[in-house]
Amino acid sequence: MSAWVLPDHLADVLPSEARHIEELRRQLLDTARSYGYELVMPPLLEHLESLLSGTGEALDLQTFKLVDQLSGRSMGLRADTTPQVARIDAHLLNRQGVARLCYCGPVLHARPDRPHATREPLQFGAEIYGHAGREADLESLLLALDCLSAAGISKPIVDLADVRIVRALFAGVMVPPETIAQVHAALATKDASTLRELTRDFPASAREGLLALLQLYGDARVLDEAARALKATPGVQAALDNLRWLAESLEGAEVSFDLADLRGYAYYSGARFAIYAEGASDSLARGGRYDEVGAVFGRNRPAVGFSLDLRELVRVLPTRALRAAVRAPWSEDAGLRAAIAALRAQGETVVCMLPGHESEIDEFHCDRALVQRAGQWTVEAA
Amino acid sequence: MSAWVLPDHLADVLPSEARHIEELRRQLLDTARSYGYELVMPPLLEHLESLLSGTGEALDLQTFKLVDQLSGRSMGLRADTTPQVARIDAHLLNRQGVARLCYCGPVLHARPDRPHATREPLQFGAEIYGHAGREADLESLLLALDCLSAAGISKPIVDLADVRIVRALFAGVMVPPETIAQVHAALATKDASTLRELTRDFPASAREGLLALLQLYGDARVLDEAARALKATPGVQAALDNLRWLAESLEGAEVSFDLADLRGYAYYSGARFAIYAEGASDSLARGGRYDEVGAVFGRNRPAVGFSLDLRELVRVLPTRALRAAVRAPWSEDAGLRAAIAALRAQGETVVCMLPGHESEIDEFHCDRALVQRAGQWTVEAA
Repeated sequence: MSAWVLPDHLADVLPSEARHIEELRRQLLDTARSYGYELVMPPLLEHLESLLSGTGEALDLQTFKLVDQLSGRSMGLRADTTPQVARIDAHLLNRQGVARLCYCGPVLHARPDRPHATREPLQFGAEIYGHAGREADLESLLLALDCLSAAGISKPIVDLADVRIVRALFAGVMVPPETIAQVHAALATKDASTLRELTRDFPASAREGLLALLQLYGDARVLDEAARALKATPGVQAALDNLRWLAESLEGAEVSFDLADLRGYAYYSGARFAIYAEGASDSLARGGRYDEVGAVFGRNRPAVGFSLDLRELVRVLPTRALRAAVRAPWSEDAGLRAAIAALRAQGETVVCMLPGHESEIDEFHCDRALVQRAGQWTVEAA
Repeated sequence: MSAWVLPDHLADVLPSEARHIEELRRQLLDTARSYGYELVMPPLLEHLESLLSGTGEALDLQTFKLVDQLSGRSMGLRADTTPQVARIDAHLLNRQGVARLCYCGPVLHARPDRPHATREPLQFGAEIYGHAGREADLESLLLALDCLSAAGISKPIVDLADVRIVRALFAGVMVPPETIAQVHAALATKDASTLRELTRDFPASAREGLLALLQLYGDARVLDEAARALKATPGVQAALDNLRWLAESLEGAEVSFDLADLRGYAYYSGARFAIYAEGASDSLARGGRYDEVGAVFGRNRPAVGFSLDLRELVRVLPTRALRAAVRAPWSEDAGLRAAIAALRAQGETVVCMLPGHESEIDEFHCDRALVQRAGQWTVEAA
């Protein structure tokens, strides 16, 4: 086996893509900062129980495990950053009021999410802790849209759902957790016959509601249909009203609803959203409310946020042109050194041709050259 | 054990430090880019043999190991990025001429380097492949100095050495590798009595040379003393001349020499340098020539480069003031939204006070507020 072969679903990012990812990274962090989100950097490795407490089986299966030589304890490589940020909010910052936090760094997945997915997404996210009201949901959604707009996504499509609707339909239904998981799976794949089979012994209102959900996707009319079809309890009606308010507050973005959608790490507790680019099948950003996420760290604060994978985002964007560079000869001449330093201080890339390599072509396109004319170093078209 | 306790030598980076690290990261990458270095992002995990081939025992002991579920093979978390960049140069880019590459990302150490070291340094580095001449050594050193200058290190001290001098003294000495390692250790700690003991049966010229090395540190006069004391072979004389040329080319930086210094991952093959800040005991950046590093990937190209740890660098820098933000009320008013968006587009941070949280104080110091006056939203001192 050759030493240069990488493990499956792991890859190098080469210069043209790496440059683009770095630009995106800065745009996303700057956008979050302009909203007042503070950057945090949790470690890549933590004790397993910190990473996995209360996060569900999916994250457990996705997490690489190893043993800490220093303590003999099991550690995990983070597969998701949100539990870490919840820990920081709960334990380290320990603020009484609102905390807005953002992050950008790699996460690692023991198994790829999809057939062609990377096992090393570069996760960017932003989260608000401490506000239970719908304003935090809206701010998170607006920030996600601004981030995608800064990245160059011009026509985003927002998909809205609320996990409380399905949960409300299960109220009073006594079934084992496996059945609930099967019902969720049938809802996700819109598999009516399986859902009918699974809910055969459910109370009639729960069964009818769950079956009705299969049709409840599309534009805002879905919310009216849902109010009729689900014989809405106050909780369901509040969730529907909340979705309508969020959609109306977005001004201009295309919005659709899918009330049967339950995707995510099973930690959502209220409204959730996914944002798509026109023509893309996978969502570019996902978020929502997950009020329970900090409980394991001793502070059950309201929380809402979103995350996205920069490596996936960069794939749907057009490649950006590289700014052309200036070619300079190699010389120990002090005047040349000063001229090069001045150009670099202005933000130019100046590539020195090392002796013997003057005729080589590299990744940097040089459209200008530093040349000596009458004792002065000047920039000329190359 | 509480879920919020982190493993030893791993820590969260909280907002004030994270913001500073992010600024430094951009300055370092922009400086490298201004010299024509292209960014690459190798994966955090690779097959063990790719990470460790030809890199020596120290890196092996520092590397976290785990098993890939997909293949059953052993993988390692990178403890150093240079072997990965050498692989990219050798196998993926495969250029005939010069390749200038840079990177910035976490590395993980199974054991801390020093009693208070982090096990998750944030490594930045820049490397030139394909040029065997001293000009590449000088460019690497100048770039390292420019990076530290951009970060705010005003009086760097450059320490120069060349591993070829010690190697030349060992020429013709037949001893086991353990003895060589012990001699290196005695040189590193300047332990004369151990060195005398270890070299008792060495040829006289090797013994005298190695013992002389213990005194060969200090300013440029060291190079003259070395030429006399080491009965310089052509190879040693070339290394000394090279060090003198590098030092003279640095203009203004304080330079010292330590010809017995052999620190690093044992992959250096020529001149090496360490850069210190005034008053700091640990070096901030380390680099040098390591022409053998790509051999295991099938292309033994000349290579020179340096790296540094941003987490360590940020500690020796004064904290930077956070630019004050603008406070805005929460409202669904379209005029307010437009005013906020305009301020954010200008690079301002605008923090919206979520309903009920108007009197809270958070990390962002707001010295101005958006207020409505005569129907217009305007910024006023807060």
